[in-house]
Amino acid sequence: MDGENRNIYWHEHVVTAEDRWTTYGYKSCVIWFTGLSASGKSTIANALCKELHKLKVKSYILDGDNIRHGLNKDLGFSPHDRTENIRRIGEVANLFVDAGLIVMTAFISPFREDRNNARKLLKGGKFIEVFVKCPIQECSRRDPKGIYKKAIAGEIKEFTGISSPYEEPQLPEIILETDRMTLEECTEYLLNYLIENEYINCSKLTDRLVK
Amino acid sequence: MDGENRNIYWHEHVVTAEDRWTTYGYKSCVIWFTGLSASGKSTIANALCKELHKLKVKSYILDGDNIRHGLNKDLGFSPHDRTENIRRIGEVANLFVDAGLIVMTAFISPFREDRNNARKLLKGGKFIEVFVKCPIQECSRRDPKGIYKKAIAGEIKEFTGISSPYEEPQLPEIILETDRMTLEECTEYLLNYLIENEYINCSKLTDRLVK
Repeated sequence: MDGENRNIYWHEHVVTAEDRWTTYGYKSCVIWFTGLSASGKSTIANALCKELHKLKVKSYILDGDNIRHGLNKDLGFSPHDRTENIRRIGEVANLFVDAGLIVMTAFISPFREDRNNARKLLKGGKFIEVFVKCPIQECSRRDPKGIYKKAIAGEIKEFTGISSPYEEPQLPEIILETDRMTLEECTEYLLNYLIENEYINCSKLTDRLVK
Repeated sequence: MDGENRNIYWHEHVVTAEDRWTTYGYKSCVIWFTGLSASGKSTIANALCKELHKLKVKSYILDGDNIRHGLNKDLGFSPHDRTENIRRIGEVANLFVDAGLIVMTAFISPFREDRNNARKLLKGGKFIEVFVKCPIQECSRRDPKGIYKKAIAGEIKEFTGISSPYEEPQLPEIILETDRMTLEECTEYLLNYLIENEYINCSKLTDRLVK
Protein backbone atom coordinates (compact mmCIF):
# COMPACT_ATOMS: atom_id res chain seq x y z
CA MET A 1 0.00 0.00 0.00
CA ASP A 2 1.13 3.50 -0.78
CA GLY A 3 0.13 6.82 0.67
CA GLU A 4 -0.30 8.29 4.09
CA ASN A 5 -3.79 6.94 4.57
CA ARG A 6 -2.51 3.51 5.52
CA ASN A 7 -2.01 4.95 8.97
CA ILE A 8 -5.59 4.89 10.05
CA TYR A 9 -6.62 4.56 13.63
CA TRP A 10 -10.08 4.02 15.00
CA HIS A 11 -11.07 6.65 17.46
CA GLU A 12 -14.34 7.75 18.94
CA HIS A 13 -15.79 10.91 17.50
CA VAL A 14 -16.11 13.75 19.95
CA VAL A 15 -19.89 13.72 19.59
CA THR A 16 -20.86 10.10 20.12
CA ALA A 17 -23.98 8.16 19.14
CA GLU A 18 -24.71 8.13 22.87
CA ASP A 19 -24.71 11.96 23.00
CA ARG A 20 -27.13 12.09 20.11
CA TRP A 21 -29.44 9.57 21.79
CA THR A 22 -29.50 11.59 25.02
CA THR A 23 -30.16 14.82 23.15
CA TYR A 24 -32.70 13.71 20.60
CA GLY A 25 -34.71 11.05 22.42
CA TYR A 26 -34.49 8.34 19.83
CA LYS A 27 -32.06 5.64 18.89
CA SER A 28 -30.68 5.32 15.42
CA CYS A 29 -31.10 2.13 13.44
CA VAL A 30 -31.56 0.90 9.91
CA ILE A 31 -34.93 -0.37 8.77
CA TRP A 32 -34.00 -2.66 5.93
CA PHE A 33 -36.92 -3.24 3.59
CA THR A 34 -36.60 -6.22 1.27
CA GLY A 35 -39.08 -7.60 -1.20
CA LEU A 36 -40.01 -7.92 -4.84
CA SER A 37 -40.27 -4.98 -7.19
CA ALA A 38 -43.65 -3.25 -6.64
CA SER A 39 -44.20 -4.99 -3.30
CA GLY A 40 -44.43 -1.57 -1.63
CA LYS A 41 -40.99 -0.97 -0.07
CA SER A 42 -40.53 2.66 -1.12
CA THR A 43 -44.16 3.58 -0.52
CA ILE A 44 -44.07 2.29 3.04
CA ALA A 45 -40.66 3.84 3.69
CA ASN A 46 -41.89 7.23 2.53
CA ALA A 47 -45.04 7.00 4.64
CA LEU A 48 -43.00 6.09 7.72
CA CYS A 49 -40.51 8.87 6.99
CA LYS A 50 -43.38 11.35 6.99
CA GLU A 51 -44.67 10.10 10.36
CA LEU A 52 -41.19 10.23 11.87
CA HIS A 53 -40.72 13.75 10.56
CA LYS A 54 -43.88 14.79 12.41
CA LEU A 55 -42.28 13.49 15.60
CA LYS A 56 -39.06 15.34 14.71
CA VAL A 57 -37.27 12.04 14.47
CA LYS A 58 -34.67 12.52 11.79
CA SER A 59 -34.86 9.81 9.19
CA TYR A 60 -33.70 9.26 5.65
CA ILE A 61 -34.39 6.82 2.85
CA LEU A 62 -31.73 5.20 0.71
CA ASP A 63 -33.23 3.86 -2.48
CA GLY A 64 -32.53 3.28 -6.13
CA ASP A 65 -33.24 6.90 -6.92
CA ASN A 66 -30.50 8.39 -4.80
CA ILE A 67 -28.03 5.49 -4.85
CA ARG A 68 -28.01 4.10 -8.37
CA HIS A 69 -27.71 7.59 -9.89
CA GLY A 70 -24.95 8.66 -7.55
CA LEU A 71 -22.72 6.58 -5.30
CA ASN A 72 -23.29 3.36 -7.22
CA LYS A 73 -23.56 4.68 -10.74
CA ASP A 74 -20.35 2.82 -11.58
CA LEU A 75 -22.06 -0.51 -10.87
CA GLY A 76 -24.03 -2.66 -13.27
CA PHE A 77 -26.14 -5.72 -12.55
CA SER A 78 -23.63 -8.58 -12.63
CA PRO A 79 -23.62 -10.80 -9.52
CA HIS A 80 -20.43 -9.05 -8.33
CA ASP A 81 -21.90 -5.61 -8.89
CA ARG A 82 -25.18 -6.50 -7.18
CA THR A 83 -23.29 -7.69 -4.12
CA GLU A 84 -21.09 -4.58 -4.16
CA ASN A 85 -24.24 -2.45 -4.51
CA ILE A 86 -25.71 -3.92 -1.32
CA ARG A 87 -22.35 -3.83 0.49
CA ARG A 88 -22.03 -0.10 -0.10
CA ILE A 89 -25.63 0.52 0.91
CA GLY A 90 -24.97 -1.32 4.18
CA GLU A 91 -21.88 0.79 4.79
CA VAL A 92 -23.67 4.05 4.05
CA ALA A 93 -26.58 2.98 6.27
CA ASN A 94 -24.02 2.33 9.00
CA LEU A 95 -22.71 5.91 8.65
CA PHE A 96 -26.23 7.29 8.94
CA VAL A 97 -26.83 5.19 12.04
CA ASP A 98 -23.58 6.50 13.50
CA ALA A 99 -24.81 10.02 12.72
CA GLY A 100 -27.93 9.31 14.80
CA LEU A 101 -30.61 8.92 12.14
CA ILE A 102 -33.21 6.28 11.55
CA VAL A 103 -32.31 5.24 8.04
CA MET A 104 -34.47 3.15 5.76
CA THR A 105 -33.22 1.19 2.79
CA ALA A 106 -35.64 0.28 0.03
CA PHE A 107 -33.95 -2.18 -2.29
CA ILE A 108 -35.09 -5.57 -3.53
CA SER A 109 -31.88 -6.99 -1.99
CA PRO A 110 -32.82 -10.51 -3.08
CA PHE A 111 -29.88 -12.42 -1.63
CA ARG A 112 -29.83 -13.57 1.97
CA GLU A 113 -26.05 -13.44 2.23
CA ASP A 114 -25.90 -9.81 1.11
CA ARG A 115 -28.56 -8.83 3.63
CA ASN A 116 -26.85 -10.78 6.38
CA ASN A 117 -23.58 -8.99 5.68
CA ALA A 118 -25.39 -5.71 6.31
CA ARG A 119 -26.86 -7.18 9.48
CA LYS A 120 -23.38 -8.10 10.72
CA LEU A 121 -22.24 -4.50 10.28
CA LEU A 122 -25.12 -3.19 12.36
CA LYS A 123 -24.91 -5.12 15.58
CA GLY A 124 -26.84 -4.61 18.81
CA GLY A 125 -30.35 -4.28 17.46
CA LYS A 126 -29.47 -1.65 14.89
CA PHE A 127 -30.71 -3.76 11.98
CA ILE A 128 -34.43 -4.24 11.55
CA GLU A 129 -35.21 -6.42 8.58
CA VAL A 130 -38.66 -5.85 7.14
CA PHE A 131 -39.88 -8.40 4.65
CA VAL A 132 -42.38 -6.66 2.41
CA LYS A 133 -44.25 -9.76 1.36
CA CYS A 134 -46.50 -9.75 -1.65
CA PRO A 135 -47.29 -12.52 -4.15
CA ILE A 136 -45.60 -11.97 -7.47
CA GLN A 137 -49.01 -12.13 -9.19
CA GLU A 138 -50.07 -9.07 -7.22
CA CYS A 139 -46.77 -7.25 -7.82
CA SER A 140 -46.99 -7.85 -11.56
CA ARG A 141 -50.62 -6.72 -11.53
CA ARG A 142 -49.57 -3.41 -9.88
CA ASP A 143 -46.52 -3.01 -12.15
CA PRO A 144 -46.32 0.80 -11.82
CA LYS A 145 -43.35 1.09 -14.16
CA GLY A 146 -44.40 -1.58 -16.63
CA ILE A 147 -41.29 -3.61 -15.94
CA TYR A 148 -43.01 -6.90 -15.11
CA LYS A 149 -44.58 -6.78 -18.53
CA LYS A 150 -41.12 -6.40 -20.08
CA ALA A 151 -39.65 -9.11 -17.87
CA ILE A 152 -42.37 -11.58 -18.74
CA ALA A 153 -41.82 -10.77 -22.42
CA GLY A 154 -38.17 -11.68 -21.88
CA GLU A 155 -36.97 -8.15 -22.51
CA ILE A 156 -35.31 -7.92 -19.09
CA LYS A 157 -32.85 -10.62 -18.10
CA GLU A 158 -32.30 -11.70 -14.51
CA PHE A 159 -35.44 -10.09 -13.21
CA THR A 160 -36.04 -10.94 -9.56
CA GLY A 161 -38.94 -13.33 -9.08
CA ILE A 162 -39.13 -14.19 -12.77
CA SER A 163 -35.69 -15.06 -14.12
CA SER A 164 -33.62 -14.53 -10.99
CA PRO A 165 -34.33 -15.84 -7.48
CA TYR A 166 -35.66 -13.93 -4.52
CA GLU A 167 -34.47 -15.46 -1.27
CA GLU A 168 -37.08 -14.80 1.41
CA PRO A 169 -35.75 -13.73 4.82
CA GLN A 170 -35.73 -16.60 7.31
CA LEU A 171 -36.02 -14.59 10.50
CA PRO A 172 -36.93 -11.02 9.63
CA GLU A 173 -37.87 -8.77 12.52
CA ILE A 174 -41.05 -7.78 10.72
CA ILE A 175 -43.23 -9.15 7.92
CA LEU A 176 -45.69 -6.85 6.20
CA GLU A 177 -48.12 -8.57 3.85
CA THR A 178 -49.00 -5.78 1.49
CA ASP A 179 -51.70 -7.72 -0.33
CA ARG A 180 -53.63 -7.94 2.96
CA MET A 181 -52.67 -4.78 4.84
CA THR A 182 -53.30 -1.17 3.96
CA LEU A 183 -50.49 1.35 3.80
CA GLU A 184 -51.78 2.93 7.02
CA GLU A 185 -51.70 -0.43 8.80
CA CYS A 186 -48.15 -1.08 7.66
CA THR A 187 -46.98 2.35 8.79
CA GLU A 188 -48.68 2.05 12.16
CA TYR A 189 -47.22 -1.40 12.68
CA LEU A 190 -43.70 -0.08 12.08
CA LEU A 191 -44.21 2.96 14.29
CA ASN A 192 -45.50 0.77 17.12
CA TYR A 193 -42.53 -1.55 16.70
CA LEU A 194 -40.15 1.40 17.08
CA ILE A 195 -41.97 2.62 20.19
CA GLU A 196 -42.35 -0.78 21.86
CA ASN A 197 -38.72 -1.62 21.24
CA GLU A 198 -37.63 1.75 22.59
CA TYR A 199 -36.11 3.14 19.44
CA ILE A 200 -38.24 6.19 19.93
CA ASN A 201 -39.28 7.57 23.26
CA CYS A 202 -42.68 9.17 22.85
CA SER A 203 -42.72 10.87 26.24
CA LYS A 204 -39.59 12.76 25.22
CA LEU A 205 -40.97 13.62 21.82
CA THR A 206 -44.55 14.74 22.44
CA ASP A 207 -43.58 18.27 23.46
CA ARG A 208 -41.86 18.94 20.19
CA LEU A 209 -44.22 17.78 17.52
CA VAL A 210 -43.84 19.50 14.20
CA LYS A 211 -46.63 22.01 13.74
CA MET B 1 -27.63 -3.85 -18.58
CA ASP B 2 -29.56 -6.56 -16.85
CA GLY B 3 -31.94 -6.42 -13.93
CA GLU B 4 -34.94 -4.44 -12.96
CA ASN B 5 -32.98 -1.58 -11.50
CA ARG B 6 -32.34 -0.09 -14.90
CA ASN B 7 -35.80 1.37 -14.59
CA ILE B 8 -34.90 4.10 -12.19
CA TYR B 9 -36.78 7.36 -12.02
CA TRP B 10 -35.86 10.43 -10.07
CA HIS B 11 -38.63 11.52 -7.79
CA GLU B 12 -38.86 13.89 -4.87
CA HIS B 13 -38.93 12.26 -1.50
CA VAL B 14 -42.08 12.86 0.50
CA VAL B 15 -40.10 14.69 3.16
CA THR B 16 -38.06 17.24 1.25
CA ALA B 17 -34.90 19.13 2.16
CA GLU B 18 -37.19 22.18 2.33
CA ASP B 19 -39.36 20.52 5.00
CA ARG B 20 -36.31 19.75 7.07
CA TRP B 21 -35.06 23.32 6.78
CA THR B 22 -38.40 24.71 7.94
CA THR B 23 -38.55 22.28 10.84
CA TYR B 24 -35.00 22.37 12.07
CA GLY B 25 -33.92 25.95 11.45
CA TYR B 26 -30.70 25.25 9.63
CA LYS B 27 -29.65 24.50 6.11
CA SER B 28 -27.64 21.46 5.24
CA CYS B 29 -24.32 21.75 3.47
CA VAL B 30 -20.95 20.09 3.26
CA ILE B 31 -17.94 21.70 4.84
CA TRP B 32 -15.11 20.22 2.84
CA PHE B 33 -11.81 20.45 4.70
CA THR B 34 -8.71 20.01 2.59
CA GLY B 35 -5.08 20.25 3.59
CA LEU B 36 -1.91 18.34 4.37
CA SER B 37 -1.76 15.51 6.84
CA ALA B 38 -1.55 16.95 10.39
CA SER B 39 -2.71 20.39 9.23
CA GLY B 40 -5.66 20.14 11.65
CA LYS B 41 -8.64 19.08 9.50
CA SER B 42 -10.08 16.45 11.86
CA THR B 43 -9.35 18.44 15.00
CA ILE B 44 -11.20 21.48 13.68
CA ALA B 45 -14.07 19.37 12.30
CA ASN B 46 -14.54 17.68 15.67
CA ALA B 47 -14.47 21.00 17.53
CA LEU B 48 -17.07 22.45 15.17
CA CYS B 49 -19.21 19.30 15.43
CA LYS B 50 -19.24 19.76 19.21
CA GLU B 51 -20.36 23.40 18.92
CA LEU B 52 -23.08 22.49 16.42
CA HIS B 53 -24.29 19.70 18.69
CA LYS B 54 -24.72 22.26 21.49
CA LEU B 55 -26.99 24.21 19.13
CA LYS B 56 -28.85 20.98 18.25
CA VAL B 57 -27.68 21.34 14.70
CA LYS B 58 -27.21 17.81 13.45
CA SER B 59 -23.82 17.33 11.92
CA TYR B 60 -21.55 14.46 11.05
CA ILE B 61 -17.93 13.98 10.09
CA LEU B 62 -16.75 11.75 7.27
CA ASP B 63 -13.08 10.93 7.69
CA GLY B 64 -10.51 8.23 7.13
CA ASP B 65 -11.63 6.42 10.24
CA ASN B 66 -15.18 5.75 9.16
CA ILE B 67 -14.67 5.68 5.39
CA ARG B 68 -11.43 3.83 4.74
CA HIS B 69 -12.40 1.00 7.12
CA GLY B 70 -15.89 0.65 5.70
CA LEU B 71 -17.34 1.96 2.47
CA ASN B 72 -13.96 2.38 0.80
CA LYS B 73 -12.08 -0.55 2.24
CA ASP B 74 -11.92 -2.05 -1.25
CA LEU B 75 -9.84 0.89 -2.46
CA GLY B 76 -6.07 1.25 -2.36
CA PHE B 77 -3.94 4.28 -3.09
CA SER B 78 -3.45 4.15 -6.86
CA PRO B 79 -4.43 7.35 -8.73
CA HIS B 80 -7.67 5.65 -9.86
CA ASP B 81 -8.51 4.51 -6.35
CA ARG B 82 -7.73 7.91 -4.83
CA THR B 83 -10.08 9.57 -7.29
CA GLU B 84 -12.76 6.94 -6.64
CA ASN B 85 -12.25 7.45 -2.89
CA ILE B 86 -13.04 11.15 -3.19
CA ARG B 87 -15.87 10.55 -5.65
CA ARG B 88 -17.66 8.26 -3.21
CA ILE B 89 -17.07 10.67 -0.33
CA GLY B 90 -18.67 13.44 -2.41
CA GLU B 91 -21.66 11.22 -3.15
CA VAL B 92 -22.10 10.21 0.49
CA ALA B 93 -21.76 13.84 1.56
CA ASN B 94 -24.49 14.65 -0.96
CA LEU B 95 -26.80 12.07 0.67
CA PHE B 96 -26.16 13.57 4.10
CA VAL B 97 -26.93 17.03 2.75
CA ASP B 98 -30.14 15.69 1.25
CA ALA B 99 -30.96 14.21 4.67
CA GLY B 100 -30.63 17.69 6.17
CA LEU B 101 -27.33 17.49 8.03
CA ILE B 102 -24.30 19.70 8.06
CA VAL B 103 -21.66 17.21 7.02
CA MET B 104 -17.93 17.73 7.28
CA THR B 105 -15.34 15.85 5.29
CA ALA B 106 -11.81 15.65 6.62
CA PHE B 107 -9.59 14.21 3.91
CA ILE B 108 -6.34 15.49 2.44
CA SER B 109 -8.11 15.45 -0.96
CA PRO B 110 -4.99 16.80 -2.68
CA PHE B 111 -6.31 17.08 -6.23
CA ARG B 112 -8.25 20.10 -7.42
CA GLU B 113 -10.21 18.15 -10.00
CA ASP B 114 -11.48 15.64 -7.46
CA ARG B 115 -12.59 18.42 -5.12
CA ASN B 116 -14.22 20.30 -7.96
CA ASN B 117 -16.19 17.22 -8.93
CA ALA B 118 -17.60 17.15 -5.41
CA ARG B 119 -18.37 20.86 -5.70
CA LYS B 120 -20.31 20.24 -8.92
CA LEU B 121 -22.48 17.68 -7.13
CA LEU B 122 -23.36 20.13 -4.39
CA LYS B 123 -24.68 23.14 -6.20
CA GLY B 124 -26.37 26.22 -4.77
CA GLY B 125 -24.00 27.07 -1.95
CA LYS B 126 -24.01 23.59 -0.48
CA PHE B 127 -20.26 23.18 -0.82
CA ILE B 128 -18.01 25.14 1.50
CA GLU B 129 -14.37 24.46 0.79
CA VAL B 130 -12.10 25.08 3.75
CA PHE B 131 -8.41 25.16 3.03
CA VAL B 132 -6.64 24.17 6.24
CA LYS B 133 -3.37 25.86 5.47
CA CYS B 134 -0.26 24.99 7.34
CA PRO B 135 3.39 24.92 6.18
CA ILE B 136 4.67 21.41 5.70
CA GLN B 137 7.51 22.15 8.14
CA GLU B 138 4.94 22.73 10.86
CA CYS B 139 2.88 19.67 9.87
CA SER B 140 5.93 17.43 9.97
CA ARG B 141 6.94 18.94 13.31
CA ARG B 142 3.51 18.01 14.74
CA ASP B 143 3.51 14.58 13.10
CA PRO B 144 1.11 12.97 15.62
CA LYS B 145 1.24 9.57 13.96
CA GLY B 146 4.93 9.61 13.04
CA ILE B 147 4.14 9.30 9.37
CA TYR B 148 6.11 12.32 8.18
CA LYS B 149 9.18 10.71 9.68
CA LYS B 150 8.50 7.56 7.67
CA ALA B 151 7.74 9.53 4.51
CA ILE B 152 10.94 11.55 4.77
CA ALA B 153 12.85 8.29 5.29
CA GLY B 154 11.30 7.07 2.04
CA GLU B 155 9.28 4.36 3.76
CA ILE B 156 6.00 5.74 2.42
CA LYS B 157 5.66 6.33 -1.29
CA GLU B 158 3.45 9.02 -2.78
CA PHE B 159 3.10 10.94 0.43
CA THR B 160 1.25 14.21 -0.11
CA GLY B 161 3.52 17.21 0.20
CA ILE B 162 6.68 15.12 0.07
CA SER B 163 6.55 12.70 -2.82
CA SER B 164 3.10 13.52 -4.20
CA PRO B 165 1.69 16.96 -4.96
CA TYR B 166 -0.85 18.90 -2.95
CA GLU B 167 -2.83 21.23 -5.19
CA GLU B 168 -3.91 24.23 -3.13
CA PRO B 169 -7.49 25.42 -3.63
CA GLN B 170 -7.69 28.46 -5.90
CA LEU B 171 -10.90 29.96 -4.58
CA PRO B 172 -11.83 28.24 -1.33
CA GLU B 173 -14.68 29.75 0.64
CA ILE B 174 -12.49 29.79 3.74
CA ILE B 175 -8.79 29.64 4.56
CA LEU B 176 -7.73 28.74 8.08
CA GLU B 177 -4.03 29.19 8.80
CA THR B 178 -3.50 26.76 11.60
CA ASP B 179 0.07 27.83 12.30
CA ARG B 180 -1.25 31.28 13.19
CA MET B 181 -4.73 30.67 14.57
CA THR B 182 -5.79 28.76 17.66
CA LEU B 183 -8.33 25.96 17.47
CA GLU B 184 -10.88 28.21 19.17
CA GLU B 185 -10.33 30.95 16.59
CA CYS B 186 -10.78 28.49 13.73
CA THR B 187 -13.98 27.08 15.23
CA GLU B 188 -15.42 30.51 15.90
CA TYR B 189 -14.56 31.63 12.39
CA LEU B 190 -16.46 28.70 10.89
CA LEU B 191 -19.43 29.14 13.19
CA ASN B 192 -19.65 32.83 12.29
CA TYR B 193 -19.44 31.97 8.62
CA LEU B 194 -22.40 29.60 8.98
CA ILE B 195 -24.43 32.22 10.83
CA GLU B 196 -23.58 35.15 8.55
CA ASN B 197 -24.32 33.12 5.45
CA GLU B 198 -27.61 31.90 6.93
CA TYR B 199 -26.82 28.24 7.13
CA ILE B 200 -27.89 28.36 10.74
CA ASN B 201 -30.53 30.64 12.13
CA CYS B 202 -29.57 31.52 15.69
CA SER B 203 -32.87 33.14 16.60
CA LYS B 204 -34.59 29.84 15.82
CA LEU B 205 -32.05 27.83 17.73
CA THR B 206 -31.49 29.72 20.96
CA ASP B 207 -34.56 28.28 22.68
CA ARG B 208 -33.39 24.75 22.26
CA LEU B 209 -29.80 24.69 23.37
CA VAL B 210 -28.55 21.37 24.64
CA LYS B 211 -28.25 21.46 28.41
